[in-house]
Order: sequence, then C-alpha cells, then structure tokens
Amino acid sequence: MQAARMAPALGRQLRRLGVGSSRTSALLGHPPPDPARRPYASGAAQVSDGGMGRESKSFAVGMFKGQLTTDQVFPYPSVLNEEQTQFLKELVGPVSRFFEEVNDAAKNDMLEKVEETTMQGLKELGAFGLQVPSELGGVGLCNTQYARLVEIVGTHDLGVGITLGAHQSIGFKGILLFGTKAQKEKYLPKLASGETIAAFCLTEPSSGSDAASIRTSAVPSPCGKYYTLNGSKIWISNGGLADVFTVFAKTPITDAATGAAKEKITAFVVERSFGGVTHGPPEKKMGIKASNTAEVYFDGVRVPSENVLGEVGGGFKVAMHILNNGRFGMAAALAGTMRGIIAKAVDHAANRTQFGEKIHNFGLIQEKLARMAMLQYVTESMAYMVSANMDQGATDFQIEAAISKIFGSEAAWKVTDECIQIMGGMGFMKEPGVERVLRDLRIFRIFEGTNDILRLFVALQGCMDKGKELSGLGNALKNPFGNAGLLLGEAGKQLRRRAGLGSGLSLSGVIHQELNRSGELVSSRMEGGRQAVCFPSLLGARASRSLSEGHPTAQHEKMLCDSWCIEAAARVRESMAALQSDPQQQELFRNFKSISKALVERGGMVTSNPLGF
Amino acid sequence: MQAARMAPALGRQLRRLGVGSSRTSALLGHPPPDPARRPYASGAAQVSDGGMGRESKSFAVGMFKGQLTTDQVFPYPSVLNEEQTQFLKELVGPVSRFFEEVNDAAKNDMLEKVEETTMQGLKELGAFGLQVPSELGGVGLCNTQYARLVEIVGTHDLGVGITLGAHQSIGFKGILLFGTKAQKEKYLPKLASGETIAAFCLTEPSSGSDAASIRTSAVPSPCGKYYTLNGSKIWISNGGLADVFTVFAKTPITDAATGAAKEKITAFVVERSFGGVTHGPPEKKMGIKASNTAEVYFDGVRVPSENVLGEVGGGFKVAMHILNNGRFGMAAALAGTMRGIIAKAVDHAANRTQFGEKIHNFGLIQEKLARMAMLQYVTESMAYMVSANMDQGATDFQIEAAISKIFGSEAAWKVTDECIQIMGGMGFMKEPGVERVLRDLRIFRIFEGTNDILRLFVALQGCMDKGKELSGLGNALKNPFGNAGLLLGEAGKQLRRRAGLGSGLSLSGVIHQELNRSGELVSSRMEGGRQAVCFPSLLGARASRSLSEGHPTAQHEKMLCDSWCIEAAARVRESMAALQSDPQQQELFRNFKSISKALVERGGMVTSNPLGF
Repeated sequence: MQAARMAPALGRQLRRLGVGSSRTSALLGHPPPDPARRPYASGAAQVSDGGMGRESKSFAVGMFKGQLTTDQVFPYPSVLNEEQTQFLKELVGPVSRFFEEVNDAAKNDMLEKVEETTMQGLKELGAFGLQVPSELGGVGLCNTQYARLVEIVGTHDLGVGITLGAHQSIGFKGILLFGTKAQKEKYLPKLASGETIAAFCLTEPSSGSDAASIRTSAVPSPCGKYYTLNGSKIWISNGGLADVFTVFAKTPITDAATGAAKEKITAFVVERSFGGVTHGPPEKKMGIKASNTAEVYFDGVRVPSENVLGEVGGGFKVAMHILNNGRFGMAAALAGTMRGIIAKAVDHAANRTQFGEKIHNFGLIQEKLARMAMLQYVTESMAYMVSANMDQGATDFQIEAAISKIFGSEAAWKVTDECIQIMGGMGFMKEPGVERVLRDLRIFRIFEGTNDILRLFVALQGCMDKGKELSGLGNALKNPFGNAGLLLGEAGKQLRRRAGLGSGLSLSGVIHQELNRSGELVSSRMEGGRQAVCFPSLLGARASRSLSEGHPTAQHEKMLCDSWCIEAAARVRESMAALQSDPQQQELFRNFKSISKALVERGGMVTSNPLGF
Repeated sequence: MQAARMAPALGRQLRRLGVGSSRTSALLGHPPPDPARRPYASGAAQVSDGGMGRESKSFAVGMFKGQLTTDQVFPYPSVLNEEQTQFLKELVGPVSRFFEEVNDAAKNDMLEKVEETTMQGLKELGAFGLQVPSELGGVGLCNTQYARLVEIVGTHDLGVGITLGAHQSIGFKGILLFGTKAQKEKYLPKLASGETIAAFCLTEPSSGSDAASIRTSAVPSPCGKYYTLNGSKIWISNGGLADVFTVFAKTPITDAATGAAKEKITAFVVERSFGGVTHGPPEKKMGIKASNTAEVYFDGVRVPSENVLGEVGGGFKVAMHILNNGRFGMAAALAGTMRGIIAKAVDHAANRTQFGEKIHNFGLIQEKLARMAMLQYVTESMAYMVSANMDQGATDFQIEAAISKIFGSEAAWKVTDECIQIMGGMGFMKEPGVERVLRDLRIFRIFEGTNDILRLFVALQGCMDKGKELSGLGNALKNPFGNAGLLLGEAGKQLRRRAGLGSGLSLSGVIHQELNRSGELVSSRMEGGRQAVCFPSLLGARASRSLSEGHPTAQHEKMLCDSWCIEAAARVRESMAALQSDPQQQELFRNFKSISKALVERGGMVTSNPLGF
C-alpha cells in the first residue's frame, strides 16, 4: 500500500513541523496507482525493451522520421488520479518546510557533507525509499510523484539531491528493476529506510563515456557458488558511505552456440560486509561538495552467485535501464533549481535601484529574466512529460529522457549564470548562495552521460530509421540505450568500420544521403533542428492544456510558448542556412580538424603572442 | 631610466633563479621609449580627451561610421624597439619561473590569501611598480611590456593577478595619470616597491554600474586646508591590505557662472594613516579567493586638500581614465589564462583513450579545441593591438579596450568551461586546477564595468556620429567614457527624456532612423555585426603580418583567421535576418517585457509546475 512505510515516519515529521496527525493517518492504506504488475513493482519498476521492436510512440523518434507522433505529447499528460494527487499534496508541504527549516545547504557545502540532522530527518521522512514499494517499506511513489519531490530537493540543495539520487535513482534502482524476489526482500527494506546506503559503480579510471571498456572483473568460482570481484571504480557518489553497491564487472561467458569464450559485463549486488571492499578519501570537488564522492576498491571480494543482478552477461542492459529510468529525475530537480534561482534573480531585480530606476525596468534585465523563465518552463515541461509517459507505461522514452537531461543541465547552468550577472558583484559572493548552485551545476553536464555523448546518442538514435542503409546496424542501434557510451562503444566502432572513417564519432555514413553532403555538420546542426520542432510542440501541448482548462497563468504560458517559437524558427532558418552553405562549412570543419591536430602536436597553442616570445 | 629600480631587485631574483648578474646589469640605464612627455610619465601615464574632439582614429568608431579607419589595425602594430624587446625578454623567463616554481595558486586559493613568500618575491621582482617611472623606483614598462608580464600572471594565478592589478592597474594609476609632481614623489616610490599597497574605491552598496550615484561625501573645511570624508565602499580589492586609497566622493561645487551649488565627484588620495579608515572582514567569494576583497569605511577622515587627485569636481574624468587605461591589461591576463587552459585541455585530449582511440581524434573534441584556440587568438590580438596603440600615443582606444574586456572575459569563461567538459569528471575535481580558474573567471564578466553595461557603452559610443539628431547629445556622448556607468547615468537619462521612454536603457531615439524600426533589438544585434567586421580585420592584420614576415605559424594563423571569418559571416547573415524579421522580433521583445513584468509581480516564476501544486 502506498505510504504504508512512510506514514509513521512522516507522521513524526509532520507533527514536528506542526501538522496535525489526523491528516497523516488519513494517508494510510492508499493503494498504489496500478497495483503491482510484478511482485513489489512500483511505478518505476518496469523493464522494457525500449519499444524498439515495434512501432515507436516516441515523439522524438517520430520527429526524426518526419512524422508527428503526438501520443506522448498531445494532450499534455495528466496522469495522477485524485488519490495520488491528494497523497502527493500531503507530502509537498512538509518536504518543502524540511528543506526551508531544517536543512542548511550553505553549511553542508562548507562541511563537505550532509549534516547528520538532515540525514536523519530525510530518513524519517522516507526520502531514501521514495519509489520502493510500500510492502517493502518504501513510499511507493510513481515517477510523477517522485519528480515533484525531487523538484523540491533541487530547489534547495543539489548536494543533498545527489546523495539521495545516487542512492535510489541509480544506487539500488537495479534491484527495483531487475532484482529477484529474494534480492528485493533482502535489500530493499533497509535501503528504503536509509539504514543502508547504496551506490552505483560503473565508472573506472580508464572508462568514462566508454563504459564498455571497464576492467573490473568477476571470476566465477569452480563450484559456481560465488564470483571473485577485483577492480576499482572512481567518482562513486556515496562511495564512502554506501553499504550496498551495484557493481558492473567483466565476466567470462561461453557462447552456447560456438563454445567460444568471451567477456561480457554482468551486474552484481555487492555488500561492504562481504569483505575486501574499501574506499578512498572524499574527492575534493568544485561543487556538490555535500555529497560524498570516492574511489571504491574491490579486492578479492567474494560475491555470492545469487547476487548477480539480471542475467549473467546482461550487465549492459541493467546499466542502461538504470540510467534511462533515472534521467527524468535530473530534469525535475533542475527545474526546481531554476525556479529557486529565478526567484532570487527577480527579488534582486525588483529591489535594486541603479540609474534612478529599479533595474527590472531595463530592457536588458527584462530579456534575461524572460529567457530564464522560458528555459525553466521548457525543462519542467520535459521532465513531467517524460515522467508521465513512464507512468503511463511508455517504453520508448529514452530519447526524451536524454534530451531532458541535456537541456535541463544546460538550461540550469545558463539560468544560474544569468542570475549572477543580474546580481553583479553580490552574485559572486558566497552569502546569497547562487555561486554555490553554479558550482554544483557544473557536473550535471558531465555525469550520467556527458551532454556531448548524449547529443550524439540522440542524433544516432533519431537517424536509425532514416534509410535502408542502416539495416546492417540494426542490432546495435535497436538496443535500448542507456549510458550513451554503452552504445557508442559498439556502434561507434561499427559505424567507423562501415564508413571507413578514422576520425571517430561522426554521422557520416549513417545519415540519409540527402543529408550526407553536410557530413560532419549534421550532428551539431541536427540538434538545433530537432529542438526547434520538438520543444514548440511540447510547450504548445502544455500551454494548450492550460488554456483549455482556463488556468490563470494560461496567457502567460502562451507567451512563453510564443516567444520560444519565434526563436526556434530563427534557429531553424539558421540551421538550414548552414546546411546550404555547405562548402564553407566543410572548410570550417576541415579547419577545426587541422587546428586541433596542430595544437596536439604542439601541446597547446601553436601561436606565440604577437611579440613572438 | 627604464629598469633603474627594478634592476637591483630583479638581480637578486635572477640570481636566485640561476640567471647570471652580468646580463642583469646590462639592463640598467635603458631609456624609456618616449622619454617623459610630462614629469615622471611612463608609457601608461598619459591623459587624453579620448580623441573625441577631432577626427577619430579608432578602428571601431570608424566601423560604426561605415568607414574603414585602418590606422590602428593595419599593419598589425609592432611597437617595441630592440632595446625594449631585449629588456622584456630578460624579464619573461624569470617571471615565468617565479610563477612555476615559487607561487602556488592552489594553496593561495585554499588559504584565501596570497602566500607571504609570493608577496615578498613579487615585491623583489618589482612587480608592484611595473609602470611606475624608473626615476621613482618603478620598472617603467610601457603598456605592451606590461601586457606581456600580465599575460604570465594570468596564465598562472588570477588571484595574484587581481592583487597586483587592484594595486597598480587601478589602485594608484590615478596618481600616475593625474598626480602632481609632489603626489608622485610622495607616494609612488613606496607603492612601486610594494612597501605600501593601493586600492581603488569607487563602488558603494547602492552604486555599482551607476557610479554617478555614489553617496560618500567629502566636505571642505572652512579654512580650505582639508576635506572631511565620510562614507563606505564595498567589494574593494586589496581593501583590507591597502595603505593608500584612491577614493571617489561627492564634493559641493559652486558654479562659477551662476553661483549655484551642486555636488560633483572628486578623487582623493587617502592614506590609512590619516585615521578614520577601517575595513570589514575579507569577503567570502566564489573565486579569486587569494585576493583580498573588503568593505572600506571612511569615518570623518581628514584628507589634506593637496591630496585632491586631478581637479576638484573632476573625479568622473579621473575614474574614467583609470578604468580605460587598465582594461587592456585584463584582456592580456586572460589571453594568458586561456593559453594555460588550452595546454591542459590538449594534454588531456592527447592522452585520454576512450572507444579505443585518443579522444583528440574525435570530431567533437577537435571542434572544441579549435574554437578554444580561435578565442584565445582573438583576445590576444585585441589586447596587444590596444596596448600597442596606447604606446603609440593613440588617445581614442576606449571602445577597443572595452571590447577587449568584454570579449576576453567571455572567451576565457567559454574556453575554461570547455576544458572542463573535455576533461569530464576530472575537470570537476580540484586537483587539476581548472575548476579554480573557472571560479576565478566568473567575476571578470562583472567587475570594472559589467559586460552588459559595457556592451551598451560600445553601442552608444559607436552610434554617436550616426546622425544629425545626435548633436544635442553631444556633450554627454563626446565625453571620453570610462566606467560605462559614468556615462550612462547622465546620458541614459537624457536619452530617455528625449525619446520619451520609460523603460530605461535603450538605443531608441539615439540611433539613425533607418535603424530605428528595430528599436530595442539594435544594441544586442549591433554587437554581432560589429564584432563580425571588427575582429576579422584585426585577425587579418595579424595573420598578414605573420605571413609577410614568413613566420612559421603563419599558415596556422591564416587558418584561425579564415575559420573565424566563416563564422563571422554567418553571424552577420543572422543579424541581418533578425533585423529584417522585424515584426516578430518586436513581438519577442514586447513579450520579454511582459514576461519579466509578470515575474516581478509574482516574485518568481509565474507558472506552477504542470501538476499545479
């Protein structure tokens, strides 16, 4: 039952915050929206093949095909039933107040850890098991409900957000998605209560975007009862705190058909208590300092065979699904971050006088604030569209989830940077807390798939149905993608082989011949074109819903939408113009290659300063 | 004589660094390039009226008029004579080695102060008085020589750069530019040796970009012997360290013609030893932590009348000239910063393997590296063009200096941000030191005139000769501008009065009627158009010089130049297209105004999230 575990803890928290317990007890016993499709399945706990085997309902996939596949966007989805809405409403106030009154983001940043009072409070709130089924002690939230609470966390403290997200959005998500009944029953109750903390261990020193190249190995014992795990993982969020690790390691696999041996990745649930698990000191970082980041070492760790997560050799799929399932949460958190930052910028602009006027009267401030609002609105619209589609059982949300991560992380960076610019010198000071957010945000464009790699992933994915010449790449491209690197490691090599390219990741040879003449250009330009079609439709859907519901902010939403469309149209014109001025663009990209080559040969700038010494 | 004071200190330093003293002594007695036009004038120590009263030689001004005024750009200037070149060469090595071997930027950042060993070493090197005439104990460098050394500082430690720059680029620059013989003789020797530290005190809590609105007051005593200074200044670099302050305060002035009393700004040289000067604690900042930033309070400070700097009531002009004269140094420092960061990015790209290849083989990394190199090349070309023109006695370099500050601060931000993206997770860690540079850089887009205000300044300045209707604004617009706010405070009000605008800073009513229909658009779009013409010419000049001199990097420079031009042409097309799609753009800017107004009324985002709560 939804809230079964959360209610008592929430009750304590609500009472502490002065909210009557009568309302709390009314929360007990609400059934989850779609009672357990599988044992202990919550809204998030579903695994799909990515919908690639059948006609895709993905809006973005349709767009790439030149079709308007509007099911996922029109009408803008509203998925919560009345009871889910009511339950969520009961949570929003207390969680908000907890972050306003108990958590101290500046102090967490300074201490470089989340204060113990916050950790305890979050555990009591049930915040460590938001999507764990209530039967196993979690709050049993669906994705949309989760998005709403994550939005609050993102508004107040991204360091806490990473601590919570590393735990449940990726740390133990694999158990939720792929765990056996026994694994779920063994691990999820303590993880949901926060008694144990989880971490996700994929990245290695020599394996970042190229996840396929991991070296950590797990060798099965002759008796078959355990695996011996050796290797090290870097930049592991919660690495120094976690008791339970989802670890990806190479395992020897014998091909059933050919008898040939090869290595494939397998996922494991590893307990610190198995022995041989150690970690390095907390990394010194630019931001999200409150979160713990550490190397984790596995030295001859004996992992029982029943702790394999998913299939032996199926670790890629596990990692993909975990990351795919978690991305919408990042966009939701960042929508919250932007909401908070915009409030600070507006407060400053409304109260600061220069040149005899409040500065919000100046056109250049108005333009900044309006653009900030547009970026927040787009990110938020994406996040809740993806979460709603996931809740409705959509299986092909990978592209949209990736886009939401790319767009959200860049939008939040831009919005926060502009807030500092509006605030001037004050924005650079620690006290207003905006510089901390900018520091925190820098990693969001890098982790869980760098935006550069994810852009390429979106472009590749979008092109996969573009022409017949792609059929040979079907197997690689039809995999449901997760960490884009997982795909690109394989697909990238295939593409290069097919296209005879030595220059690495490129769309040449993959894209339709009508686009081919602009070769290198496409992956960057396509981004502009795709966004230009995708986002106006999304915003149009959301604003339409508000208009037809007669929402008081509907006209404002229409204006955000209209403004976005004017600029999107300009970007389309620009992209088309760039595609048409092909010879110059070709020259430009040839130049980039030559300039880069010369820089690498020289080890830095080739030119001296104009003095020559 | 150039180097008179520096040589002994430099000698010690050189010996410490293993450079023979025989070479050092050869440095003694070199005459400055253009022997003292005024008593103790160094290359930097010249005051002009900005050249606005006669035909401007400014390249940028010419561009705005639709003329190619190429004197300042073609050929790309080479101003150092052999002796100056030789002297500078002798300095470059030891200064570089000092920053490589003695200074520890990461430690300074951590300590939130410049280590004492570094401070002492810099004083011994003469680094506190680089442009002070040698007769007064300085090194007597011209602007181009100064730029070269500042470039080294910028490569290694922007926190140290701010400490040095706040001292000599703005802190005591007023004494160099406007000081009487007595003031120079009294203050410059100790300032040049670093025995006393200087600070520039303009900004106040309620007066940032709008410098005209300062409230600090200096009231003359009835006897006329002193002024009583009261007020407070914020965000003063070196505020907690300085002994000598250049302070701007309102003084009552009686108009000689009308007898009417009004307040005008006057500049003063204020010693801490006068009494009544105190400061607040060091500000906690995002970056440039090694530099001291503090509030400075003046509480009934008795300032002798002979400490008025420049004319009574002429403080605006003093502030303008100080800031104008210093801006090229910022671009030079940032060119150095980019050079260092690009070396780190290249090192990573050359050595990091992913997907089975060194990542510099991937198109998306090549594009990043090439663009970084272009941004560095443009900034560096600007910096040395401005310094050279100043050294050649040019008097109208304000626009170019402002452009170099805007462009350099944004280029360095972009380059460093991309370096982090190339480095991935490693870039976010403290250890490689790139995140520190990004934190340091954030303030460069804000201080000494925010880039937004400077952009408007450039546009206003550029338009001043555009049409006859501007004649009435002549007095305001023909002032040589410094801190753009100094102008905009007055001119902005006049413009608004003339144009009947209530919406603040805008070009409407100022620009020629042919442009007028795009009203609000112009100031932002003009930037694109101007850069698009200005920079290719500059790069063309520099690359041409290298080509005609047969420089080994000439072809590479040509490629940087060609690539820049291809994209500049695209930006021109885009700007023109935007100007032509006027109705939509007008709608866009109307929307921005409405959206911003609604945000201010609501105190933040107007829209709720899609759930409505």
